[in-house]
Amino acid sequence: MTAQSYRLGELAEQIDCRLDGDASLTIDCVATLEQAKPGALSFLANRRYQKTLGHTHASAVIIPKALTLASFPFALLRTDNPHLAFARAARLLNPPPKPSPGIADSAIVHPSAKIAPDAEIGPGVIIEQDVSVGPRCVIQAGVVLGRRVAVAQDCFIATNASVLAGCEIGARAHIDAGVVIGCEGFGFARAPDHWEAVPQLGRVIIADDVSIGANTTLDRGSIGDTVIERGCKIDNLVQIAHNVHIGAHTVIAAQTGISGSTRIGEYCTIGGQVGIAGHLEIAPGSTFTGMTMVTGHVPKAGIYSSGVPAASNQEWRRNAVRFRQLDAMARRLDALEKRLTALTNQQDE
Amino acid sequence: MTAQSYRLGELAEQIDCRLDGDASLTIDCVATLEQAKPGALSFLANRRYQKTLGHTHASAVIIPKALTLASFPFALLRTDNPHLAFARAARLLNPPPKPSPGIADSAIVHPSAKIAPDAEIGPGVIIEQDVSVGPRCVIQAGVVLGRRVAVAQDCFIATNASVLAGCEIGARAHIDAGVVIGCEGFGFARAPDHWEAVPQLGRVIIADDVSIGANTTLDRGSIGDTVIERGCKIDNLVQIAHNVHIGAHTVIAAQTGISGSTRIGEYCTIGGQVGIAGHLEIAPGSTFTGMTMVTGHVPKAGIYSSGVPAASNQEWRRNAVRFRQLDAMARRLDALEKRLTALTNQQDE
Amino acid sequence: MTAQSYRLGELAEQIDCRLDGDASLTIDCVATLEQAKPGALSFLANRRYQKTLGHTHASAVIIPKALTLASFPFALLRTDNPHLAFARAARLLNPPPKPSPGIADSAIVHPSAKIAPDAEIGPGVIIEQDVSVGPRCVIQAGVVLGRRVAVAQDCFIATNASVLAGCEIGARAHIDAGVVIGCEGFGFARAPDHWEAVPQLGRVIIADDVSIGANTTLDRGSIGDTVIERGCKIDNLVQIAHNVHIGAHTVIAAQTGISGSTRIGEYCTIGGQVGIAGHLEIAPGSTFTGMTMVTGHVPKAGIYSSGVPAASNQEWRRNAVRFRQLDAMARRLDALEKRLTALTNQQDE
Repeated sequence: MTAQSYRLGELAEQIDCRLDGDASLTIDCVATLEQAKPGALSFLANRRYQKTLGHTHASAVIIPKALTLASFPFALLRTDNPHLAFARAARLLNPPPKPSPGIADSAIVHPSAKIAPDAEIGPGVIIEQDVSVGPRCVIQAGVVLGRRVAVAQDCFIATNASVLAGCEIGARAHIDAGVVIGCEGFGFARAPDHWEAVPQLGRVIIADDVSIGANTTLDRGSIGDTVIERGCKIDNLVQIAHNVHIGAHTVIAAQTGISGSTRIGEYCTIGGQVGIAGHLEIAPGSTFTGMTMVTGHVPKAGIYSSGVPAASNQEWRRNAVRFRQLDAMARRLDALEKRLTALTNQQDE
Repeated sequence: MTAQSYRLGELAEQIDCRLDGDASLTIDCVATLEQAKPGALSFLANRRYQKTLGHTHASAVIIPKALTLASFPFALLRTDNPHLAFARAARLLNPPPKPSPGIADSAIVHPSAKIAPDAEIGPGVIIEQDVSVGPRCVIQAGVVLGRRVAVAQDCFIATNASVLAGCEIGARAHIDAGVVIGCEGFGFARAPDHWEAVPQLGRVIIADDVSIGANTTLDRGSIGDTVIERGCKIDNLVQIAHNVHIGAHTVIAAQTGISGSTRIGEYCTIGGQVGIAGHLEIAPGSTFTGMTMVTGHVPKAGIYSSGVPAASNQEWRRNAVRFRQLDAMARRLDALEKRLTALTNQQDE
Repeated sequence: MTAQSYRLGELAEQIDCRLDGDASLTIDCVATLEQAKPGALSFLANRRYQKTLGHTHASAVIIPKALTLASFPFALLRTDNPHLAFARAARLLNPPPKPSPGIADSAIVHPSAKIAPDAEIGPGVIIEQDVSVGPRCVIQAGVVLGRRVAVAQDCFIATNASVLAGCEIGARAHIDAGVVIGCEGFGFARAPDHWEAVPQLGRVIIADDVSIGANTTLDRGSIGDTVIERGCKIDNLVQIAHNVHIGAHTVIAAQTGISGSTRIGEYCTIGGQVGIAGHLEIAPGSTFTGMTMVTGHVPKAGIYSSGVPAASNQEWRRNAVRFRQLDAMARRLDALEKRLTALTNQQDE
């Protein structure tokens, strides 16, 4: 990132905020309320943290439109969505480095590949037959693009990522380091005494505006494709199995695994270390908290959870052992209720 | 994959099916029953989906030997194991690309390495001292083979995988992108105020016909080796710790972790995100469903599970809080039973 | 590793043990008690395994100072900490290969980078602008060091790891293959119908003596840095989110995930597949057993656990279904107690 500075008035206009303060102030960085120094822009998204405003050194703070403040020693930028305005300001103040068009000497590019002249192909990149790379892409050092891979415009693919044969990546993708797109799906047929691989003939198709975190793996489809719809944001070390379909604008946190052929609706929010079994349908707009175990269809949007939060080991041991008696306990409870009712009736006679 | 076509009669013979239909039909692809077009071969493994046969456009369908069908507009291929026959047909129709023998100009191969003349060594591959690579292997772009690594014949190692010093890989291995074989085991000795690494002196030994999924990590042994027996199939992002021993033909789904020195028997089936503690013995033929937590020996084959499936967050909160009262509830239940018995006795007096 | 041999007397002195046996014996390897052959040094850390001493072929065994043994056919080395003494002996007998100073021909090093003359830069390594690499570092094949990365002395970075722009690595780090340091944090602001990336402006700062396992990912900070304090040991496939702070000498086992802005105290022990939610404070010295789900602050050191251990699938099904009735069961228990008390009172009247 290369830091820039802005007059506050211009910044407010560009991020669509109402300014209440000195438009000529110079803003040269973003910061949290706690760490801000003069010259910094900060934000308050949640009124719970409002008292932090009392001791911030920020020069300007983005706040919710409706918030009323008694007095304050900093400029205010008012908006309906402070977090979004802050994100946009941060991008203006820290524009990503521009691509340095051209192909590094040490990159190996097959002559049949079509590389946009203003794309940046880093050192040690390997590009195989019939690959296409769109305008303004940055392909970092050590990336491998397999045969027939198509990368649309304005994509960023970080170091040592692999995009394997035939996969397609939409515009403005952000693919982080070590990601593998198009590895083999996990499909085996049982022979009498061993397993035989079922050829994985599909691809991975990634729509526009998708972000994929470091070392995440996306299996190619078995028959048909694995599909990530536009706007999805996927974190690090996530596993997406063959023929999974992820709806648009769904967010998936780190280390979550989605098993084969499951279809996730659009605008879902999936926490970290969630496990979703195969061949399921998950309704659009569903939310799963971290570590949730999803073994059945989710036909209706909602917030879903499972797991048992941490307790002291001593307490946990006592309770975990009882989990195995839970069914027996339920039956004993039934029996007790019946006995007590019988006794009460008897006494009432 | 390069698609081929077959006469149905020849295909049926090669995959050992009894043909009931026109042997001269041309088959040029495989497909699911739903997506099949004329020219496609499909299969029905599970009678549950039998009604799908009613509207498939497949030209031929592999079905269980014993199934009786009233009338049907497609050829039938009968076998005891439709899934296996389908896998084999898919491979015939989509043979993997043949290796292009030779060493890419940009590969760095140490002069002491022994590379079979018909192996394919891709661009940017790095092969260190005393490595051997067997006949017909394909080593894709960016792979690193460390000192003394031995790769047997007909192996496939995908982009950017690392096989570190001294490890051995058996014939016909499929090692996917980003895999790390032979990283350091996690062994530290506690000094009074810090940890000191215990040298990890062993190797990883992988037998024949093993498949390892993308970004999976296999630690080298501490003293002695980590061993993966023949025919094992391991999915993406799996962790195999030092000195683990995995028996032949065991299948391990994505994101599962197996802790140090645990021995898994042959023909086990381990679901995704399973965690198996260290120094355990797991009986051959054991099955663990996804997300199971294995903290003790498993002396007997069976199907094992743990975890609590997802519920609505509201319902889950109510129940999770009670988990911490489970032991107390069990004691209250005991007390109630005693009191009720006492009361009943008293009344009977 | 290159094996060396030692006279037992010299070895005992170097690892600070009291020798009870023949100082002139030659020791040429370490081994477990079970696998040891003559010439091997072994150790007994836990008295539980004391009977193994009866049939070991080791020439010398490190034992706890206080242990009394009747008679034994091997030399004894006595110390307060046999595991630590063994680790040090193993390192003396198997010293890591010395760096081969110099830059491989195929490495791409930006002219602005400062590489210590006695560092080893392997084949295919890519080093970008303004990087510094300290004395005696080994940077293995295929590693990428992004702009302005600083690597202190005596570090080891294994094959195909990525250290991205601006990150800093302290002395004596061990970074295993495929590690990604400085990937983007997972930060998005919600726009009305899509997500927008919040620029991730911080770095990853790694102090001295840190070890990081294969394919682990460490996100750069959003605003401010992600920090790993000195002496931390992190296993494979771990996820460290943006702005996490890990205290000194904390140990984290494989596949654990730590969410954004969480602060872990020093000397914690975190098992495998643990999930720790974001914005939490974890007390120094806390221990979490494998697969624990941590959703709240941990203000006090202790051993914490959660999860339910595996049971037979049949048993598990019965009990898991009851988990969803747990709150109802608790209420029924309350009601039963009240009814029984009422009945008892009534009868006593």
